[in-house]
Amino acid sequence: MDFKTWINEKIKNVEVYLSSATGAKDNPQALIYEAMNYSLLSGGKRLRPVLLLAAYELFRNDEDTALPFACAMEMIHTYSLIHDDLPAMDNDDYRRGRLSNHKKFGEAAAILAGDGLLNKAFETGLKAAINGGTDYEKALRALYEIAKSSGSEGMIGGQVVDMFGHEKISSLEDLKYMYSLKTGAIIKSSVAAGAMLGGANDEQVAAIEEFAEKIGLAFQIEDDILDVTGTLEKLGKATGSDAANHKTTYLTYVSVEEARRQAEILTDEATKRLDIFGEKAFYLKELARYLTSRDH
Amino acid sequence: MDFKTWINEKIKNVEVYLSSATGAKDNPQALIYEAMNYSLLSGGKRLRPVLLLAAYELFRNDEDTALPFACAMEMIHTYSLIHDDLPAMDNDDYRRGRLSNHKKFGEAAAILAGDGLLNKAFETGLKAAINGGTDYEKALRALYEIAKSSGSEGMIGGQVVDMFGHEKISSLEDLKYMYSLKTGAIIKSSVAAGAMLGGANDEQVAAIEEFAEKIGLAFQIEDDILDVTGTLEKLGKATGSDAANHKTTYLTYVSVEEARRQAEILTDEATKRLDIFGEKAFYLKELARYLTSRDH
Repeated sequence: MDFKTWINEKIKNVEVYLSSATGAKDNPQALIYEAMNYSLLSGGKRLRPVLLLAAYELFRNDEDTALPFACAMEMIHTYSLIHDDLPAMDNDDYRRGRLSNHKKFGEAAAILAGDGLLNKAFETGLKAAINGGTDYEKALRALYEIAKSSGSEGMIGGQVVDMFGHEKISSLEDLKYMYSLKTGAIIKSSVAAGAMLGGANDEQVAAIEEFAEKIGLAFQIEDDILDVTGTLEKLGKATGSDAANHKTTYLTYVSVEEARRQAEILTDEATKRLDIFGEKAFYLKELARYLTSRDH
Repeated sequence: MDFKTWINEKIKNVEVYLSSATGAKDNPQALIYEAMNYSLLSGGKRLRPVLLLAAYELFRNDEDTALPFACAMEMIHTYSLIHDDLPAMDNDDYRRGRLSNHKKFGEAAAILAGDGLLNKAFETGLKAAINGGTDYEKALRALYEIAKSSGSEGMIGGQVVDMFGHEKISSLEDLKYMYSLKTGAIIKSSVAAGAMLGGANDEQVAAIEEFAEKIGLAFQIEDDILDVTGTLEKLGKATGSDAANHKTTYLTYVSVEEARRQAEILTDEATKRLDIFGEKAFYLKELARYLTSRDH
């Protein structure tokens, strides 16, 4: 199967699972499902769930076992976007080419929809761990990785530095620390959780985490480049916002050309770490190249 | 040991655990720990963790095994208060006798502190499940109960009805449905999770859930009464807010005296459901009476 066919199949499976994942019912709180699904089913790139599935496939072929955990990653990612867009945070009116959650449903519902998706991520993972085809300890370890990566030592911590600590970012190292939390942590836990669920040993998990750290940084560098060179049409959100907000980015320190070069080096180093998996790593390697050379 | 000594000991153990539970570090995101701990360590009544511990004690004596799960309940309760107090939600400036989280740290930090506490609750429970003295399946089932109860089929769902569905509440039954989600669900999951961790069988879990449903409603009725009869001094928050906000409460349908009578009947029925546990249920029964006859 070529990469394009492979990734489209993975995305389709994720979309199918997500479409019924909130458990939406016709009950007095139906608005919460509507607000959760508005953002969850708005055609994101589904990178994190696909990364989890690709890492799982290094070890096992029964994708359905990993699918709920993969979709939990997308719920966490989506909740973070909803809360990031709030007026008190980045105050963004658009996301993925349409109104952001709070512009559509109001601030209160958007806060609750974000809370609901974060909660639903763990609900989904725990339910799968109880019912699913993997052993309890593996599932617990994978869920714990996910929880750590999305919390105050991970994504939320990175968001705090991004919101309140920009004046303290005085070097590329400081910036990389912030990126490693804000976007890197859940990219890393996506592949780590996939590998753990699949039954990876410690050495294999370490290789895959190193892969993910490099890919995560390359991905973020690409994001900074796109904010300068991208178009509203392709990104579905405003460009030039980093400069307008006087935000420190990778391009504060290096040129677009140099940034692009570094992202390429990181991607090469990352994919080399997967050589221990032989041909099985084909899709995960292709995925790394796809992530770090995107135009949206 | 008398009840007063017992509950003070439980609360002390919860306080000690919570005081280091966020894992606060001196790192660039230190503000998030400060904001999380500001609300987490502000002297709440610790009812949910104590309920979990009391239910666990019906079955086992090694309290330390259950303590992280108990404290996870308090994190969930605390995050919900931080988000409820936000300007877009109830817009409350005070909580537990001091400034609410967003008045102290600003809206963005308060949103993130709430997110961080919800996330930390699962992190804490998952870590305890991996390391702890209970078997994996029991821990997973307890955490799943907790996750369901705090999400869109539980507390968040109740909050949505409270925020957006009040005009549709046209009977005491509608109101009880909202209460069963908004406050009842995590009271119920606290005792259910404690019992499950302790090794309760299905019949025992059912009895304890029925106990908790009745106590949860009695507790909420008491809350509605206190909003009318309480004082700012004792409650640490404004009174009369339900009337000022034209909110439907239990007292929309029945008098204070009748409400008090119903809360007492519910408490009696609840404690009777614990008779199957014999003398072991002494503290949990006392706790039920304490919860439903409080003045703050």
